[in-house]
Amino acid sequence: GQILSIKAHEEAGGPHAELNAISEILKNFRSDLILPKEPNLAFEIICKHYKNALKDFAIFVSLEPCAHFGKTPPCARLLKELGFKKVFVSVQDESKNAGGGGEFLRKNGVEVEFGILKDEGEKLIRPFLKWSKNKTFKLFKLALSLNGSAFGKTVSCEESRTYSHKIRSKIDLLVVGGNTVRKDRPILDARLVKGKAPNVCILSRGDLSEFDKDIALFKVPNRRIFSQIPSEAKFIMFEGGRDFLELLKDEMDAFLIFSNSSFKESENVKINANFRPLFKGILGEDSYGIYEL
Amino acid sequence: GQILSIKAHEEAGGPHAELNAISEILKNFRSDLILPKEPNLAFEIICKHYKNALKDFAIFVSLEPCAHFGKTPPCARLLKELGFKKVFVSVQDESKNAGGGGEFLRKNGVEVEFGILKDEGEKLIRPFLKWSKNKTFKLFKLALSLNGSAFGKTVSCEESRTYSHKIRSKIDLLVVGGNTVRKDRPILDARLVKGKAPNVCILSRGDLSEFDKDIALFKVPNRRIFSQIPSEAKFIMFEGGRDFLELLKDEMDAFLIFSNSSFKESENVKINANFRPLFKGILGEDSYGIYEL
Repeated sequence: GQILSIKAHEEAGGPHAELNAISEILKNFRSDLILPKEPNLAFEIICKHYKNALKDFAIFVSLEPCAHFGKTPPCARLLKELGFKKVFVSVQDESKNAGGGGEFLRKNGVEVEFGILKDEGEKLIRPFLKWSKNKTFKLFKLALSLNGSAFGKTVSCEESRTYSHKIRSKIDLLVVGGNTVRKDRPILDARLVKGKAPNVCILSRGDLSEFDKDIALFKVPNRRIFSQIPSEAKFIMFEGGRDFLELLKDEMDAFLIFSNSSFKESENVKINANFRPLFKGILGEDSYGIYEL
Repeated sequence: GQILSIKAHEEAGGPHAELNAISEILKNFRSDLILPKEPNLAFEIICKHYKNALKDFAIFVSLEPCAHFGKTPPCARLLKELGFKKVFVSVQDESKNAGGGGEFLRKNGVEVEFGILKDEGEKLIRPFLKWSKNKTFKLFKLALSLNGSAFGKTVSCEESRTYSHKIRSKIDLLVVGGNTVRKDRPILDARLVKGKAPNVCILSRGDLSEFDKDIALFKVPNRRIFSQIPSEAKFIMFEGGRDFLELLKDEMDAFLIFSNSSFKESENVKINANFRPLFKGILGEDSYGIYEL
């Protein structure tokens, strides 16, 4: 009755959640075990040397294990080789190329139960589900003081900023308002994770040529700057304050809101909105949450 | 290298943290073990039947284990009987009646190290340290919307309100402002934990006789109502909004601040204050923290 590992698929091309979790369990059992980082190699070593090592274990996955050779080998085969007795799947993978893992497992004598905590599972992998249907996922980021102000120097703690930079390094596009660019003169990069600075779209009544090109964000190498959201951008983060939020909130898929520990003597982000938390957490000295409207 | 239990001393007269932690560990080793709730009995059963059961284990305590028979038997003896090898103590107990546990342990061959994470330990047990010096501990409670407003119906979630009620059931006095009483007509009890409703002090320019006695808080049985803070009240919680906070913040020992998930179109608690978090957590759909100024 113990949970041995909880893991996620952290980035495209990297090991899927199943491989990450199984690697952790094996390492806990054998502290001298070193697995290669390259997921294909790790996969093959585990299948060869740890066949049935997790016999009669159960695994709970948010998304149906993949059955295809994509950037990594199929997770359904991994679960079969390790000897799992039962696989609980929250969300069925309806994509044609990766789906079918459940069927493969059943054919190989592994019990599969679909639909466990389906609503929660869908929330958890919402960006993936949008991506898999070629739709756009829009996230709004807002950093507040504990008393709700986004004005002045509301600075999130380093852990929060690092988290934001991690997201910036993964997105297709960062969207900001023209006023923010003129006033804050930001760089909008991902330096805290040494990641790729995102392309930027500046929504402004004026023309891009009117901006002072000495503003830091224009000097980032290999960055594309847009004045309209290009249709090929699928994972987009919006960063701004009250006006930007009010304008855009109804078209967002989710909101990432940080609160630090200070009270400011300035106006709050005064809008009416009943956010529902999908997740709440702590980062350093800040609280944060991912919300939907 | 594993943590087997983390426990606290939850209320006066109840088992100390050491007994709680040891009971949990023994129960995890022997799932059929049932220990009596009464701490003296549990203590004696453990000492008799589990001598040296935790031989060579280490324990980390925020406060030096007690050496006296108070409402419960001395924890120092418990640690010795269980066979602990080393006791790491954050804060030395300087009170004359309970202190000396470290000395007792050393005399009985148990290693003791004082001063580990001393600053953090003192923060953790600050209410106890104040109480042990016969000083007053003052906590300010504030419930906010995510955008910093305390106006209108800012309702914390049930888990947060239950936590507040738990504190209300333990304090010597709850202090509120006259305006809050007139406007909100609150009951200020501890019904969510079926606990004792606290005595109340109403700070108001007017006289207590001027309040409408149909207001719920006046109808709570066995409650005393004060117009000034009585000197015998040692653990006091203040509840209020912006004005009350502004007026009282400099004399508070700590602040308990809840943030729910909604944005309100009303004014925020607009003060300037750099709170330092002592603790941050999640309660249901709310974030909360305990802060100092």
